[in-house]
Amino acid sequence: MIFPVLSILVFSGIVLLPVLLPVAGTDNALEKAAGLNNGKAAQNFTQLERLALGNVQKESSRLWAFLLSVYWVSFVTYFVLWKSYKHVSNLRAAARSTSDVKPEEFAVLVRDVPVPPPDQTIKDSVDSYFRALHPDTFYRSMVVMDHTKADKIYQEIESHKQKIARAEVVYAESKTASKPEGTKPTHRIGFLGLIGKKVDTIEYCNDKIKELVPKLESEQKITLREKQQQAAIVFFNRRSAAASASQTLHAQMYDRWTVMQAPEPREIVWSNLSKKIYERQIRQVVVYAIVFFTVVFYMVPITAISALTTLEKLREKLPFLKVVVDQKEIKTVLQAYLPQLALIVFLALLPSLLMFLSKLEGIPSQSHTVRAAAGKYFYFVVFNVFLGVTIGSTLFSALTTIINNPRGIINMLANSLPGSATFFLTFVALKFFVGYGLELSRLVPLIIFHLKRKYLCKTEDDVKAAWAPSDLGYNTRVPNDMLIVTIVLCYSVIAPLIIPFGVAYFSLGWLIAKNQVSQELLSLTQV
Amino acid sequence: MIFPVLSILVFSGIVLLPVLLPVAGTDNALEKAAGLNNGKAAQNFTQLERLALGNVQKESSRLWAFLLSVYWVSFVTYFVLWKSYKHVSNLRAAARSTSDVKPEEFAVLVRDVPVPPPDQTIKDSVDSYFRALHPDTFYRSMVVMDHTKADKIYQEIESHKQKIARAEVVYAESKTASKPEGTKPTHRIGFLGLIGKKVDTIEYCNDKIKELVPKLESEQKITLREKQQQAAIVFFNRRSAAASASQTLHAQMYDRWTVMQAPEPREIVWSNLSKKIYERQIRQVVVYAIVFFTVVFYMVPITAISALTTLEKLREKLPFLKVVVDQKEIKTVLQAYLPQLALIVFLALLPSLLMFLSKLEGIPSQSHTVRAAAGKYFYFVVFNVFLGVTIGSTLFSALTTIINNPRGIINMLANSLPGSATFFLTFVALKFFVGYGLELSRLVPLIIFHLKRKYLCKTEDDVKAAWAPSDLGYNTRVPNDMLIVTIVLCYSVIAPLIIPFGVAYFSLGWLIAKNQVSQELLSLTQV
Repeated sequence: MIFPVLSILVFSGIVLLPVLLPVAGTDNALEKAAGLNNGKAAQNFTQLERLALGNVQKESSRLWAFLLSVYWVSFVTYFVLWKSYKHVSNLRAAARSTSDVKPEEFAVLVRDVPVPPPDQTIKDSVDSYFRALHPDTFYRSMVVMDHTKADKIYQEIESHKQKIARAEVVYAESKTASKPEGTKPTHRIGFLGLIGKKVDTIEYCNDKIKELVPKLESEQKITLREKQQQAAIVFFNRRSAAASASQTLHAQMYDRWTVMQAPEPREIVWSNLSKKIYERQIRQVVVYAIVFFTVVFYMVPITAISALTTLEKLREKLPFLKVVVDQKEIKTVLQAYLPQLALIVFLALLPSLLMFLSKLEGIPSQSHTVRAAAGKYFYFVVFNVFLGVTIGSTLFSALTTIINNPRGIINMLANSLPGSATFFLTFVALKFFVGYGLELSRLVPLIIFHLKRKYLCKTEDDVKAAWAPSDLGYNTRVPNDMLIVTIVLCYSVIAPLIIPFGVAYFSLGWLIAKNQVSQELLSLTQV
Repeated sequence: MIFPVLSILVFSGIVLLPVLLPVAGTDNALEKAAGLNNGKAAQNFTQLERLALGNVQKESSRLWAFLLSVYWVSFVTYFVLWKSYKHVSNLRAAARSTSDVKPEEFAVLVRDVPVPPPDQTIKDSVDSYFRALHPDTFYRSMVVMDHTKADKIYQEIESHKQKIARAEVVYAESKTASKPEGTKPTHRIGFLGLIGKKVDTIEYCNDKIKELVPKLESEQKITLREKQQQAAIVFFNRRSAAASASQTLHAQMYDRWTVMQAPEPREIVWSNLSKKIYERQIRQVVVYAIVFFTVVFYMVPITAISALTTLEKLREKLPFLKVVVDQKEIKTVLQAYLPQLALIVFLALLPSLLMFLSKLEGIPSQSHTVRAAAGKYFYFVVFNVFLGVTIGSTLFSALTTIINNPRGIINMLANSLPGSATFFLTFVALKFFVGYGLELSRLVPLIIFHLKRKYLCKTEDDVKAAWAPSDLGYNTRVPNDMLIVTIVLCYSVIAPLIIPFGVAYFSLGWLIAKNQVSQELLSLTQV
């Protein structure tokens, strides 16, 4: 995504900077306006503002240069997008036709399987249905099963195994020269290991595992037989057959046998597979409504929380804070920053909230969920950062204005956009200097890793798991970059000086993303 | 289509008529209003108006009955639509799985075939492409060819054959008792048979046919070899394979190898098959723009034409009209009716214009063209008849009002809808009494048939061709019925008395449509 954006900005900048900067810089609307209003404050504007559209006089023929620039930027954008569409399409086609086959390329995900007649299992009905429709290419099917119970037992076994491994490390460390037999680690079997009988960890866990394994096996058999869900993954014997089947309507009524491309195995959100089509639709509507209200009225809960959590109230509720709060300096600072703190906490929690909401929609693949969350976050930042700052009021009051007078939106934007040019120029520069600095240092993950290693990790595996890189955070990275794209493209003609900042932001971003991706690939192969 | 509408209206009427008529009839808002304004004209409203929403007083609790009625009508409508969706879907599934197979069920239409490498014909490239993608189910392909030239020769041969047949009938008739050898029919070979050498028709045409047949054969060979178009019909060996292929993307780029279900052979609009995807898109945009302006500004050309064709101007241009126009009575009538005449001519030509425009869009099947034209016509009648009458001004001024104040549309409709209730009640009744009367009598087709038989038809085949029924005219019939549906549903709660008229319209319409369809089927089997 970064490379096409860079191309757009560079090609736009090559023409816009040498043309528009002199055109705007040599005019003197700002000086005149300042001179008229107040003879003394004739220099009451920055040099940045001199180089923008705001410095061109009304009905000046210089405006033609700006109009033509709009066409040039649009043309460059469409052209680069078209080129990169082709490029991405070729990449995808190449990936789909390599000899390096992946199982999901031969499969489709089938949901909303109708309830079969009583003498058939769901697997039988899926098999016969797809064999009839794809006699030459159907290979086999896998019905999704609800193995919550079996899974729980498996998890228990695994945790016991982990405990044994840790206990063995502890036991080995305790065999010092002075005490060669060591002390066998013990724990209590009650709540959180705090109460109950004290037992030898290694022996106890081994017994438990022996007890659980047959239980797991019998549970697995029951699951296979009785807990088939109304969803399945169907495999074909050719890639093209699977691709074609995933695009085809498979039933007469649209609410049955819905098919789609199978996601990668590690990406499937299993809990969403068995959700029915109507449930998914209702969930989607509800989630969209919640997101809409979050985007538009996001200030309401924050002000409410700030009002509730005034210092006085906090002091009453949590008396142990008294010592801190009663000091005068701290009190002043806290009183000033509590609302901002609420805002920061809300903004920090927002991506997780949006991810959670997107998962609730019933999307069956993890990466689609991330994409859905990224879309929601993009709406949030565009509405609240871009429009919010531009229009200079909360989005809600702007919305009512727009509803009352939709044609007024053009005037409203035309009046307020040039005014915020300097703000956004600074915004992009700040993102570039500070944002990427924090990103590069990866301070937070480092701290978390060291805390983990010190207090939680016992075995080699634990250390590896802690060191494993987290994902790239597409759900906030992409919308944040898209916000910068939106801002830079929008202001590229109004204040062309923003283009170099945009170029710098995305060239650095490109380097960092490449670096992070290659590191991540490295660690993935290491693990 | 008619049966579900009837069900909706009957079910709505069963509840609305017995409930709303007494509720409205026993109130007295109209009497009060009339009494307040003018004591004498207390009866200045019709009995129809007494039985509508307009007679209920402001903020009366009787309005709840109307609100609940809206929910009832909506519920009935959704329920019936859902039922008939299922019904139609079942019908279609049954038709698709009968043993009575149709060739188009095994075929897909492929357009935008890319230009093949020079050593391949288009047919080769289609064959190899589809054989690779559908190795088990591909049967064969037929490439569309531009046989305009061959067709022209074929038409010529056919017209000569027809001439011979007619000439033989004339020759046989000329063999009377008094002149047993008869007179051989002759014609001139020049322009329109008016000038040139006189020849014996039968001999001349036979010679011509002998001359043209080898020409046709050689032209057919050339066409097969060299005039392949970039479109093809691909056949599969299974219905399900064709159905699945028609829904699948066949190429990496969306502008190549576009596939769709093959239309019935007799329905294909051959000239549209070879149009490229971008050409089709541009044509569609242009056609939609033209239709938009036709719908919104339809009064403009009519007033312009009326202004141009004032009697004075006509008199100057066409002097032979003087005798008629100079008579005073005729002049008065003509002057009054010329604008209406222009309007009537425009409205009569409109369906043909819309059919023509829809064909220009590049739709490859005749029935889709009819559907597209019907949609356009529906917009026209809804905007100009329904909204035009309701809002009581031309659509254009209404549009500007809406653009200036979008929220005002609710007030505008709320103010004007009840006022036009009586008008639309009369409108539906008129359609019912007069429209269907004309339809049933089929006066115009009868006149045309008799004219044809008298002056044009010579052979038995000609008479059959003239008697063959024209199509049902879906492109005007469906939108007109939909207009009635819109009107009746819209006024069903405001003035419930409209429901019986709607029911009458559609029950009669059902009978007539059944009658016409069965007649048409009869004559189709006869021919």
